[in-house]
Amino acid sequence: MTCELAFIKALRAMAGHPAARGLDDDCAVLDLGAKTLVLTHDAMAQGVHYPDAADPYDVAWKLVAVNMSDLAAKGAQPVGVLLGYMLGRDDVRFLEGLRAALDHFGAALLGGDTIAGPGPQVLGLTAIGRASHCPVPSRAGARAGDGLWVTGALGAAMLGFEALESGSGDSTAYRRPQARLAEGKALAPRVTAMMDISDGLLLDAWRMAEASGLTLSIDSGSVPIAASEARRADALRWGDDYELLFTAPAGTDLPVPAFRIGEAAERTNESPLLLDGLPITDPTGLGYQHKNDRETQVPPS
Amino acid sequence: MTCELAFIKALRAMAGHPAARGLDDDCAVLDLGAKTLVLTHDAMAQGVHYPDAADPYDVAWKLVAVNMSDLAAKGAQPVGVLLGYMLGRDDVRFLEGLRAALDHFGAALLGGDTIAGPGPQVLGLTAIGRASHCPVPSRAGARAGDGLWVTGALGAAMLGFEALESGSGDSTAYRRPQARLAEGKALAPRVTAMMDISDGLLLDAWRMAEASGLTLSIDSGSVPIAASEARRADALRWGDDYELLFTAPAGTDLPVPAFRIGEAAERTNESPLLLDGLPITDPTGLGYQHKNDRETQVPPS
Repeated sequence: MTCELAFIKALRAMAGHPAARGLDDDCAVLDLGAKTLVLTHDAMAQGVHYPDAADPYDVAWKLVAVNMSDLAAKGAQPVGVLLGYMLGRDDVRFLEGLRAALDHFGAALLGGDTIAGPGPQVLGLTAIGRASHCPVPSRAGARAGDGLWVTGALGAAMLGFEALESGSGDSTAYRRPQARLAEGKALAPRVTAMMDISDGLLLDAWRMAEASGLTLSIDSGSVPIAASEARRADALRWGDDYELLFTAPAGTDLPVPAFRIGEAAERTNESPLLLDGLPITDPTGLGYQHKNDRETQVPPS
Repeated sequence: MTCELAFIKALRAMAGHPAARGLDDDCAVLDLGAKTLVLTHDAMAQGVHYPDAADPYDVAWKLVAVNMSDLAAKGAQPVGVLLGYMLGRDDVRFLEGLRAALDHFGAALLGGDTIAGPGPQVLGLTAIGRASHCPVPSRAGARAGDGLWVTGALGAAMLGFEALESGSGDSTAYRRPQARLAEGKALAPRVTAMMDISDGLLLDAWRMAEASGLTLSIDSGSVPIAASEARRADALRWGDDYELLFTAPAGTDLPVPAFRIGEAAERTNESPLLLDGLPITDPTGLGYQHKNDRETQVPPS
């Protein structure tokens, strides 16, 4: 077994604790009686999750932001992080980005471990948040008849990545992603399912549909995009925008701006996803894929 | 700045949250009102913290055990872990060791992240425990007049490492370290300071003395060792035994077997450590050292 998905499947079989949510959610949710904690861990490897030449400031920012986005999807308030740091090219610059990101998202540095390693840098961050609403939203709660919404335009990170690659244009959206923490908190009491879009709208919607055991229909024309119309198909498949994707009963009074892009229905055939009425039966090409050896940064369109 | 210690110092300056304990303790201690959580994260790199040829079962075991030992030093009851896993040589074997270790220590798999990376494997584990006693013991609480104890014999991991290297003898103590969880819980209400011995008795005692702002005197002859008398000096400097080192008021009725090896006194000179009455003013050579580029596995004796 060398495949990431096979490993994750085997891990999943071990994760019987209710807080683990079958490893099928963005976070672990630990019920402590009076309080509920939300825990998430993301790892990033140089050359896979960020380019060798990336500014360490941006690497630190992204490491924090992707974890904060997982907390946002649970409606959680950040408490703090534990950092697993491997010394790299410019540790001072990394620390500057770390401090800026932690300040920005309101998370404290609580602990961690610093090591030296012989190969490319690998980083890990565990983020801890306090649930603001119980039950804590999951990916699995969508119900037939629900509407499907997204909190903002997609494709900004794609354009930012391309700007960075070409050396012209604004790459901020790619280098310094935001996390929808305020929106997640406001939405948590209203949604039936919620997750962040880290790997592309279509792939993440597929995952929500699979977790919820139903079919999500998306009207691609109604998805807000930050790119030109010619790039719509790409924007639906590109990751790193970290908007929230959620379902709620049709007619729900939403506390934050959001765009309705589709709805949930009973699964009537094999397909978890209908795109403009066409059933999609294979997630390949929908977004960031996990391959046998590497994750791909740019999804096929 | 390429040095691990310099990086840690800079991190420390950022860690103002009381739960972080100034990054000067084995764990973060998060007070949630009715409950207190103890959080720790350790990272391990192939070729640095474990040999390239190590059995992945043992790697998983050690990754879990070192974190459990940090919880033990806080008197905490394991709750669960989040795993940052980079795919490696034999992921099935790693999973077997992970499952065995989690079962053994009573910790649930709660979440994490699995990635593929281009270089040597780097692993991270965050462990979460529930404090059994508040205030949660720290390294910093030793008081002049306290006795200094250790929960068991040192040097077993050293002999195990040598058995593994030579291919003859029992290497279990090195490959499958234990964590003194039951002892830590029993001791937590009685100790003034406590930590686990991961990097060698003398170096870790030095750290406790520095954190507590006093001098610890150790009578080397009274330290229980698992090796022959000829190896006593080595056993005092070798890590990986994961016994608990603690101080308590002289005359304390200890709830578990432990060996008194010295005492704490006011700092009267520059030296945090007196070994058989001789002041030690430089921690170099006391145990596992953090060097500029690599950690060394075998400390100088």
